[in-house]
Amino acid sequence: MLGRVKCAVAGFMGGIMAGGSSGGGCNPGSELPMKFPYMRPEFLGLSPDEIECSADHTARPIVILRETRRLPWATGYAEVINAGKSALNEDQACCELVIARRRPMSYCPPSTPTKTPTAKRRNSLPNGEGLGLRSDHNKLGEDSEGLVFHYWALFDGHAGSGAAVVASRLMQHHIACQLQAVIEILRNLSSLPPTVLGEEPDTNPYLQGNPPGPHRSLTRAASLRGASGAPGSPCNTPPPPRFYTEKKIQHESLVIGAIENAFKEMDAQIEREKQVFHITGGCTALTVVYLLGKLYVGNAGDSRAIIIRSNEIIPMSTEFTPESERQRLQFLGFMQPHLLGNEFTHLEFPRRVQRKEVGKRMLYRDFTMNGWAYKTIEEEDLKFPLIYGEGKKARVLATIGVTRGLGDHDLKVHDSNIYIKPFMSCCPEVKVYDLAQCEHGADDVLVMATDGLWDVLSNQEVAESVTTFLANCAPDDLHRYTMAAQDLVMRARGVLRDRGWRITNERLGSGDDISAFIIPLMYGNHQP
Amino acid sequence: MLGRVKCAVAGFMGGIMAGGSSGGGCNPGSELPMKFPYMRPEFLGLSPDEIECSADHTARPIVILRETRRLPWATGYAEVINAGKSALNEDQACCELVIARRRPMSYCPPSTPTKTPTAKRRNSLPNGEGLGLRSDHNKLGEDSEGLVFHYWALFDGHAGSGAAVVASRLMQHHIACQLQAVIEILRNLSSLPPTVLGEEPDTNPYLQGNPPGPHRSLTRAASLRGASGAPGSPCNTPPPPRFYTEKKIQHESLVIGAIENAFKEMDAQIEREKQVFHITGGCTALTVVYLLGKLYVGNAGDSRAIIIRSNEIIPMSTEFTPESERQRLQFLGFMQPHLLGNEFTHLEFPRRVQRKEVGKRMLYRDFTMNGWAYKTIEEEDLKFPLIYGEGKKARVLATIGVTRGLGDHDLKVHDSNIYIKPFMSCCPEVKVYDLAQCEHGADDVLVMATDGLWDVLSNQEVAESVTTFLANCAPDDLHRYTMAAQDLVMRARGVLRDRGWRITNERLGSGDDISAFIIPLMYGNHQP
Repeated sequence: MLGRVKCAVAGFMGGIMAGGSSGGGCNPGSELPMKFPYMRPEFLGLSPDEIECSADHTARPIVILRETRRLPWATGYAEVINAGKSALNEDQACCELVIARRRPMSYCPPSTPTKTPTAKRRNSLPNGEGLGLRSDHNKLGEDSEGLVFHYWALFDGHAGSGAAVVASRLMQHHIACQLQAVIEILRNLSSLPPTVLGEEPDTNPYLQGNPPGPHRSLTRAASLRGASGAPGSPCNTPPPPRFYTEKKIQHESLVIGAIENAFKEMDAQIEREKQVFHITGGCTALTVVYLLGKLYVGNAGDSRAIIIRSNEIIPMSTEFTPESERQRLQFLGFMQPHLLGNEFTHLEFPRRVQRKEVGKRMLYRDFTMNGWAYKTIEEEDLKFPLIYGEGKKARVLATIGVTRGLGDHDLKVHDSNIYIKPFMSCCPEVKVYDLAQCEHGADDVLVMATDGLWDVLSNQEVAESVTTFLANCAPDDLHRYTMAAQDLVMRARGVLRDRGWRITNERLGSGDDISAFIIPLMYGNHQP
Repeated sequence: MLGRVKCAVAGFMGGIMAGGSSGGGCNPGSELPMKFPYMRPEFLGLSPDEIECSADHTARPIVILRETRRLPWATGYAEVINAGKSALNEDQACCELVIARRRPMSYCPPSTPTKTPTAKRRNSLPNGEGLGLRSDHNKLGEDSEGLVFHYWALFDGHAGSGAAVVASRLMQHHIACQLQAVIEILRNLSSLPPTVLGEEPDTNPYLQGNPPGPHRSLTRAASLRGASGAPGSPCNTPPPPRFYTEKKIQHESLVIGAIENAFKEMDAQIEREKQVFHITGGCTALTVVYLLGKLYVGNAGDSRAIIIRSNEIIPMSTEFTPESERQRLQFLGFMQPHLLGNEFTHLEFPRRVQRKEVGKRMLYRDFTMNGWAYKTIEEEDLKFPLIYGEGKKARVLATIGVTRGLGDHDLKVHDSNIYIKPFMSCCPEVKVYDLAQCEHGADDVLVMATDGLWDVLSNQEVAESVTTFLANCAPDDLHRYTMAAQDLVMRARGVLRDRGWRITNERLGSGDDISAFIIPLMYGNHQP
């Protein structure tokens, strides 16, 4: 793991961007060119010297946006490197305006989603240019060229920074690409998305009384519970045919589906390109898309987003960890035991079972249980538990502490041929927040940050810090969100004392990489 | 389905309880004796004539407890039969005090859990006898003979009443049986449950620094995320071994585990006994156990329990339906496609796909998605969707509208060899409510009812009805909860008008069977 990281450092420090070997003796794959070099977020505009300084594990400088640069919506951002757990900062961030251009009756071929010639990226521009959007698109995100969306993302890498760097460069294009296929539909808010493309919404033959073709369809309407219990329905009248119903899908669901599929395509691209590029490790992904008045927060991993609105906290993501996904993982291990390689058991025990305990009764739980019960220990139970440990120390297959994300295609259990990837999911949970539901003041924000922040600060502490900080800034100061992000990261890192990094109440500060966006919500309603 | 029901009626009306044939020409299995005859809840004490009257699909009389009978805690109960969807009332109810007797170092053999000679049932007794518990057990539920728990349960049958009747007679014994194995541990609140039975809690060798036996254990401690990020940990120090941790399991988790396993054993017993008895259909199960100061609400199906406390509503269950469990079911169909019998697809579409739509792009979603996207329709997509329909009309395999419960082992898709059971789960979700967390007044209650109630009344409407009704009764009137239950069932059934059963605001009343318990919570703290 560290070996791979060293290769990446060598590649970066030596200025080898891509196309060359980054040194021998590394893990397999390192002789391949890099897809993208190690970097810090483009919008920070750091020079190579500055990047080197930012990686000081002892001083741990907090890096913020220069005063001359601004992100859309005056978004604040700050980051700090870890206290030594990896040579490089494995977090990556991205913030952009993206245009998905119209391309009627077409869609991204899954095999070449990165080329997306019609998805044009607008970098965050210096001097506030990124904020001045009125000239070419209205607040609904429509544009003569297509559909504009705002995009913020955090990727927290592990076992190398390769996957995080690639995802931070390309994820937005996958989202744009998925949205391209539905631009016309999303722009037409006056009618619901058609079930079939190229058909008028009301030409559904089922609604016109023509029974569907395939065999047996009416017998499939037999039902045991529900509609047959309609009031007054006599015993022996057959239930009415059920094929005249058609689910109405909302526009919002298309955006959710586009983000979900974009994550899958991003992961598939990493898998494909690992064949020709050196892409190390894996990463979590937390993305925020602002489109047509709504925020869509997609999360695959253990980063977190919350909205702070008038002192209320609205969680906008849930974390995916061995503990929160225990039952999904145990179920998979139970259904496909070959994935456990005869070394792991899908059962959970409070600790390792010892050989001398065979025949005794020990606490356990399986995928159907939330409680615990005793079972008689058998030989089989001596295998290592698929899920093991508690809290931040919980691991899947004794290897990884997060259960969703991108990359990790090569990751195996140490000294074995057991792959981790089948237990990982690249699928995000997407939560939606309608900005039109209320007016937002200058202190109403969305905070998104990697687990380095949330490991040491609770939602409540983060909300109090941010709210207190912003209350002491002028409401029209466009730097206030950057300053608040800096303050927040400082509170989580703490200060270096004799006994390490310490935060308030003598608690340990976070030794992890920390990255945080603070996104003011008022700009969703009113472009500044 | 109706055929089977008719057999059961014949069996009951003719007074054939068990051991005889209930008539020819019925479904296979009907030549077997019945495990238990069709009945109404034992605590109602109805005569055969009264049971016949209660089954009037036109008058739909609301059946309540006689004044001379009382349930523990003065629990209220009311029920009404459906408007004709099945000949018999397929709901079943049970309310009892149960003693799990001590049986050290032993447990229920899975093959004979119904015999349970040491699990003694106390019927709800007439004349309030069931309330007078002080004589032989204290309020913590301890008893010289073992552990006493209060038990309420509702079972909502489908495709016959057999499974519901069996479960209403036996589930409490399975719970008692599972609790027997942990009585000593549950009674000893001063120390946590031991990981291994027969070992002192602190003799865990891992805590004493003896590494575990099996090979490779230390290498399995390798970790990619989490603890290695501890503050100040230098790059190349190996992470500390992780085998010195042991999960602490609370007493509450043992009760949850006991209830979970009791549901599984109940289901397994039905499967076994179907070989020798005529047990029709399946049923949902909602159980409430009061033990050692806490309520444990276990739910497998679409019944519901809520607590109403000082005008606040606390949901104590969630429903398991094709919609709420869509992703679990689709995942199973995706992983084990043979369960779909080449007739169903795990993908969801807004409606059936037509042959002429092959090649077009249609909305779909798979098990990873909550949103929708377009896909090009292929031949494969012409299969019937595993999950189909919306709301109460949603079905799994075009057959069943509920996704957890007991029984249904023989249930197949109409005119096919595709079994439904692999998609059903008998595992409950168990929620816990600590009665000691606050003082409860006479109007604080738990309402549990089958879906017949909740289909037409919202939680809010139920809470308002019950609260208003109870406010108009004397707080010390022990009939008030029965009267409130009657009122509630009446509000959901409505009154028969020209255009069927109608409730307030001219809405349709419930045509389903309706059963409801109203359980006052104050008796959990103070036995009356």
